[in-house]
Amino acid sequence: MRIIGLDPSLSSTGWGVIEVENNRMRYVADGFIKTDPKMPLPERLVHIHRTLNEVIETYKPQEAAIEQVFLNENPKSTIKLGMARGVVILAPALYGIPVTEYEPTLIKKAVVGVGRAEKAQVEMMVKVLLPGCKPKNNDSSDALAMAICHFNLRGKVF
Amino acid sequence: MRIIGLDPSLSSTGWGVIEVENNRMRYVADGFIKTDPKMPLPERLVHIHRTLNEVIETYKPQEAAIEQVFLNENPKSTIKLGMARGVVILAPALYGIPVTEYEPTLIKKAVVGVGRAEKAQVEMMVKVLLPGCKPKNNDSSDALAMAICHFNLRGKVF
Repeated sequence: MRIIGLDPSLSSTGWGVIEVENNRMRYVADGFIKTDPKMPLPERLVHIHRTLNEVIETYKPQEAAIEQVFLNENPKSTIKLGMARGVVILAPALYGIPVTEYEPTLIKKAVVGVGRAEKAQVEMMVKVLLPGCKPKNNDSSDALAMAICHFNLRGKVF
Repeated sequence: MRIIGLDPSLSSTGWGVIEVENNRMRYVADGFIKTDPKMPLPERLVHIHRTLNEVIETYKPQEAAIEQVFLNENPKSTIKLGMARGVVILAPALYGIPVTEYEPTLIKKAVVGVGRAEKAQVEMMVKVLLPGCKPKNNDSSDALAMAICHFNLRGKVF
C-alpha cells in the first residue's frame, strides 16, 4: 500500500511517497513542484494540478496525508496558501484517494517524538525512518514526514 | 463571445454567464454551487470542481472574471475562501480560458457607478443591465456583476 504526503504552497509544493508492506515502510520517491511568482496565478495553479496528477499516475498512491492549516498572520499569505491547498487536495480527491489531515504538532510527534521539533530534526528522522532516502528539499522532507505520520497514526486517531 | 463571472466560496460559489455581441450584452445563465459543511473537505472541493466543469462544458465561455481576494479578519475563513478560490480559478484555467481578477470596488463601480455600493444595488443594476435576468441568489448576482465588469473594462484597465 502506498501513501503520499503533501505539503502545499503556491511557490513550492512538496510531495513524498512511501510504500507500506507487512507493517514496514520504505521510501519510494519525493519531489517538489515549483512555480514562478512571475507567472499568472491561474497558470501556477494549473502547473501544480498537472504535475501532481503526473506524480499520482506514476506512483499510484492509495492514501494521502496533508498537514492541517498553518494559519499565517498575513492574510495575503493565508489566501495564497489556501489556493494552493485547495488545488493540492483536489488532485488525489479526483482520483478517489482518501485525504487525511493531521495537525502540524501531531506530525512532528509521530516522526520525531516531540510536537515542537525543528525542521532539521524532522529531516534527520525522515532519513532514519526511510533508509536510503535523501529528501530533495525541506518541502519534500515535510511531505515524507506527513506520509510517515499517516502510516503511524492511521486507524489510531480516527 | 461569452464571459463567465465567478464568485468563489466553499459553501456557495456563484457563477453567471453573459453573451457579448456587437458590443451589447445579454443574460445567458446563472447559478450557485452549494456544498454541505458536513461533507469532508476533499469532497466539497471535488463537487465545486465537477459542477463548474459542467457549467463550462454547457455554456462554453471564452473569458472568465473573478473578484480579487476579499481578505477576511478571521484566518480560518480566509483559508477556506482560499481553497475554494484555488479550485474555482483552476477550472477555467484548465480549459485554457483566460481568468481576469478585478478589485471589488472596481466591480461595483463598473456595474453601479460607485465603489461602495450595497449588495441590493448591485443586484438591481444587474437586472437593469441584463433584461429578463432574475439572479438565482446573491452569489450568482455577484458573479453576473463580475461578468458585466469584465465586459465594461476588458481592454481598458489592462
